Amino acid sequence: MIIDCHGHYTTEPRPHHAFREAQIAFAGGGGARPSYPEISDDEIRETIGANQLRLLRERGADMTIFSPRASGMGHHIGDESISRTWSRHANDLIARIVAMFPDNFVGVCQLPQSQGVPISGSIEELRRCVGELGMVGCNLNPDPSGGYWTAPPLTDRSWYPFYEAMVELDVPAMIHVSGSCNACFHTTGAHYLNADTTAFMQLLQGDLFKDFPDLRFIIPHGGGAVPYHWGRFAGWR
Amino acid sequence: MIIDCHGHYTTEPRPHHAFREAQIAFAGGGGARPSYPEISDDEIRETIGANQLRLLRERGADMTIFSPRASGMGHHIGDESISRTWSRHANDLIARIVAMFPDNFVGVCQLPQSQGVPISGSIEELRRCVGELGMVGCNLNPDPSGGYWTAPPLTDRSWYPFYEAMVELDVPAMIHVSGSCNACFHTTGAHYLNADTTAFMQLLQGDLFKDFPDLRFIIPHGGGAVPYHWGRFAGWR
Repeated sequence: MIIDCHGHYTTEPRPHHAFREAQIAFAGGGGARPSYPEISDDEIRETIGANQLRLLRERGADMTIFSPRASGMGHHIGDESISRTWSRHANDLIARIVAMFPDNFVGVCQLPQSQGVPISGSIEELRRCVGELGMVGCNLNPDPSGGYWTAPPLTDRSWYPFYEAMVELDVPAMIHVSGSCNACFHTTGAHYLNADTTAFMQLLQGDLFKDFPDLRFIIPHGGGAVPYHWGRFAGWR
Repeated sequence: MIIDCHGHYTTEPRPHHAFREAQIAFAGGGGARPSYPEISDDEIRETIGANQLRLLRERGADMTIFSPRASGMGHHIGDESISRTWSRHANDLIARIVAMFPDNFVGVCQLPQSQGVPISGSIEELRRCVGELGMVGCNLNPDPSGGYWTAPPLTDRSWYPFYEAMVELDVPAMIHVSGSCNACFHTTGAHYLNADTTAFMQLLQGDLFKDFPDLRFIIPHGGGAVPYHWGRFAGWR
């Protein structure tokens, strides 16, 4: 069985986007708090069938581990309650896809991270997604600031409560930033790759797996610059 | 002739370091403004002969384009006058090496960049290094904040006065960050590589070479993650 370990729902139905746009406006003080719209099974079937499922079949793979669009997580937007609401809807949408195509998709959740708040606020949504929605992992954002890198490294003890929950639930995290709001970093052309390299080096500098021998991370996008510069890391003392 | 286009003086004589340490203390409000110490030709000959020159010969190359240690530039430390003094001493030291080993080293300068000040403050030192010290280029830091990326992208018009001077003097710049003061980024294991990837993508997003057809940049460290992710960039619209 061939499993694509890293797919995002980048073809979300239009009402899902409209909700987020209204929510961002609300977070910025414009307009009312929006309600999440009705999205039909047909809309989901259509966007998946014409895109991710078609490509999966054309490429001869069997299954995709599937999560919400990473650049859409937007942990730098609004406060923690905005992130919580948005994450629940984004994850529920993934759960619907998995329920409709159980042979082809397995779910991974986005977390309600937010700038400057403890990661423990994301534990409840992880538990809900794994326990109630049957998801098998999460995307963990090492930079909720969206390109200013104001959170401590992943080896910092402030992340530990979340790692404890991951180990208890026996699920891995993919290290994945969201969109960049720093004009220096193009989201997919720089920020994603930089984050992969950065996370790898943070793990090399720290001793995290001594404290959490069962903790599992996936670093995506081929590891950013890491494999290409292996000698640089191999020589690191 | 085999030319190594990117070497740094990472074995500076001890008095050079001692000066910088005293200068950093002074910039932080501790102690008096230090004077630059005497450094003998023997100290320079020794540190170069046992290291860069030895390695150049062992590896069968002929010449190194040589500049001050990149991580030592420290543009986030102190103000512009601190950077100016430090850059002059660091560049003068490179010029002495080139004068002592003219067959093996050609000089490239560090710039007196500083957080939040116009890049035009670096033009004078570029002119001095090219015009008086015979240097053939400079190291341009796209992130004088040392890991917080608060300066605008390299395609921003605020950088243009410096590019005009580069074109006038007909010298290239190597895009090279300095040390990271952001705990997320290890200097050589993440920040350097991220900066290479970041700068490449900034240039791809902009249209800088339309405004400066004769401008020349070198992106070091094999381009960071870029060659390894060529499809990502090739597919960029």
